[in-house]
Amino acid sequence: MKVIEGGITAPQGFLAQGVCAEIKYKNRRDVAVIYSALPCTAAAVYTTNVVHAACLDVCRSHLENGRAQAIVVNSGNANACTGKQGLDDAIETAVYAAGLLNIEPQDVLVASTGVIGVQLPLERVLCGVKQAVSTLTPEGSGNTAMAIMTTDLVKKEIAVQIELQGRTVTIGAIAKGSGMIHPNMATMLAFITTDANIEAECLNKLLKSSVGISYNMISVDRDTSTNDMAAILANGLAANPVIDDEHSPDYKTFKAALDYVNTALAKKIARDGEGANHLVEVQVVGAADQNAARTIARSITASNLTKAAIFGHDANWGRILAAAGYSGAVFDPSRVDIYLGREKMCQNGMGLSFDEEKARKELERENVTIIVDLKSGDGQATAWGCDLSYDYVKINADYRT
Amino acid sequence: MKVIEGGITAPQGFLAQGVCAEIKYKNRRDVAVIYSALPCTAAAVYTTNVVHAACLDVCRSHLENGRAQAIVVNSGNANACTGKQGLDDAIETAVYAAGLLNIEPQDVLVASTGVIGVQLPLERVLCGVKQAVSTLTPEGSGNTAMAIMTTDLVKKEIAVQIELQGRTVTIGAIAKGSGMIHPNMATMLAFITTDANIEAECLNKLLKSSVGISYNMISVDRDTSTNDMAAILANGLAANPVIDDEHSPDYKTFKAALDYVNTALAKKIARDGEGANHLVEVQVVGAADQNAARTIARSITASNLTKAAIFGHDANWGRILAAAGYSGAVFDPSRVDIYLGREKMCQNGMGLSFDEEKARKELERENVTIIVDLKSGDGQATAWGCDLSYDYVKINADYRT
Repeated sequence: MKVIEGGITAPQGFLAQGVCAEIKYKNRRDVAVIYSALPCTAAAVYTTNVVHAACLDVCRSHLENGRAQAIVVNSGNANACTGKQGLDDAIETAVYAAGLLNIEPQDVLVASTGVIGVQLPLERVLCGVKQAVSTLTPEGSGNTAMAIMTTDLVKKEIAVQIELQGRTVTIGAIAKGSGMIHPNMATMLAFITTDANIEAECLNKLLKSSVGISYNMISVDRDTSTNDMAAILANGLAANPVIDDEHSPDYKTFKAALDYVNTALAKKIARDGEGANHLVEVQVVGAADQNAARTIARSITASNLTKAAIFGHDANWGRILAAAGYSGAVFDPSRVDIYLGREKMCQNGMGLSFDEEKARKELERENVTIIVDLKSGDGQATAWGCDLSYDYVKINADYRT
Repeated sequence: MKVIEGGITAPQGFLAQGVCAEIKYKNRRDVAVIYSALPCTAAAVYTTNVVHAACLDVCRSHLENGRAQAIVVNSGNANACTGKQGLDDAIETAVYAAGLLNIEPQDVLVASTGVIGVQLPLERVLCGVKQAVSTLTPEGSGNTAMAIMTTDLVKKEIAVQIELQGRTVTIGAIAKGSGMIHPNMATMLAFITTDANIEAECLNKLLKSSVGISYNMISVDRDTSTNDMAAILANGLAANPVIDDEHSPDYKTFKAALDYVNTALAKKIARDGEGANHLVEVQVVGAADQNAARTIARSITASNLTKAAIFGHDANWGRILAAAGYSGAVFDPSRVDIYLGREKMCQNGMGLSFDEEKARKELERENVTIIVDLKSGDGQATAWGCDLSYDYVKINADYRT
């Protein structure tokens, strides 16, 4: 597998563009269109929040046939809690884009991110769609990645190439964070494109499993969004023999590449969490099973106290163990070892005397690693988060107004 | 029912004292003893964190017979994650106090709060116990309430009197917060005394139900502590006819008073949450059932995004609805109304145009009230929390060191 440039437009046949449509701010890209020259096999996963955006209902309906060809996305407005008007607006956006692209409305997915509870400025969205469609380009990934940013500081894109039976298959993706991040079955907007030839059910299964170990393992603030969505389009232009058997080597090669792409983007989202100074990686090993490991790893990454301690570079491992303890997973505290980077802080549930200076150094790294060994089984999982800083509070004390 | 002065030593026969023992800081009260002249009917509830302090194991064992006569408590050190040494220290503390008080070790409860994972400075604890026992006083509630404070800014005590068949019965209580507060079946240290004559099983039942609507409905940071504990001692000196029937009027009168005491302390803990500027009360009404109402109310009080918006006086009701949505409770978003104080922000799941200035005024109050009406049933619940401020981050970035 090879990491390449080009993001979401790296796979063959994909064009994209992100433009400034003044959805919330002037001179900021906020509407984007992603388009495949051919109809695609497609799959998506969505937030489990019972309060969800109108656009997700549209996607769910449009993906019933496992097919799509374009995605329209705007930032600056979530089109959530907007009632029938919001649903009508999402549908109209799809219909309008389909007209311009000369494809079926059913083949257009619609996504939104931004403030909740404000009606979409539909005229401006449609104006942006028109502008984006008229300037679609195979170099459009960067502008598109920028157009989906809200409080994100950096754009998040990636692409990789694999070989499947002599054919080069490319996977590209973009994603955005950066607050209201505690995904549950999906995340805050990730779009993945590939020219792989792959059957719809396989694609769906691969996306679900990949999201489970990537976006669903990050947390910025334990707030699960109303608009989370990860979608993948596969247009088949790589002309590899169709992937339709989950026991085949090709399936596994593609899975590894897709997992790499999604995990890389998930880590970028966590690192760019609102106000974050550190990417925090929590590796739980030796758990009774994988579920227990996941639950504990997520609980630690979501703990405000642990996050504030990391912000302060304070080796307060007791908070890590406490967060494991209230996670809901069952384990024997008297067997737990905890490491901060290379420094062992806790053995068999008790504190070791450790070198404060070395521990502080581990916490000053941009990427902080916490390892929790439960010594009770084979379950393991990795989760990612960030520290809790003054800036997180600042950003969210005045995000709306 | 009448609210009176005197806190935990207001009921007849209770003495207490809190002294400076240098557990973590100099010149700060940090060891306390609460003592009843007569053996008491007693009950306690504890944290559900699987990682819990040694002292809780001692309490559990000592309360097997439903009886106790004294409580020893220290702040500055949680005696959690301290292994066999921690357990031995907790037992030795009980034995030592029992010797001084001339009672059975079995009748002494032990509680700790403070940093996790550091061995208890046992000599200093015992020295403090000796000092406290030698100066026990019926005016000792204030010093005791101070001795259990950690990052708390204000001491928390209350007492009430009720009449039961011509006898005056008093209930007194103290509690502490103020971080790692998201109790689950108990809270971060609350001690309740009463001179009521009450049967052990009734007392246990009353405490559990009262904790369910008071301490278990507050959150400061969604971190459930390792040391949470609420305990009640009843010495019978009020000489009321024994309360032993949960259908009796006396039971109900006592229950109302106990609920009042615990709810008042729970609100004090939330208001004094680390870095808090506001007490936030979330009233959920019209839920399918009480459980759904509780789940939603707690989810909103625990949402970092909602808390940061309140800190910024930003009427960002979409975050409130989103937090309800990911709570795990099922409801129909299109029926939800949301009020900030007297201002209606959202009707049938959609934003109303509202007066920004009036909404801001509601958020500038010291006590902020949020009402969420699901219009789907009779379930209701109230939860309390606080805003998320720079000071919360500051306090927890350098709490340990």
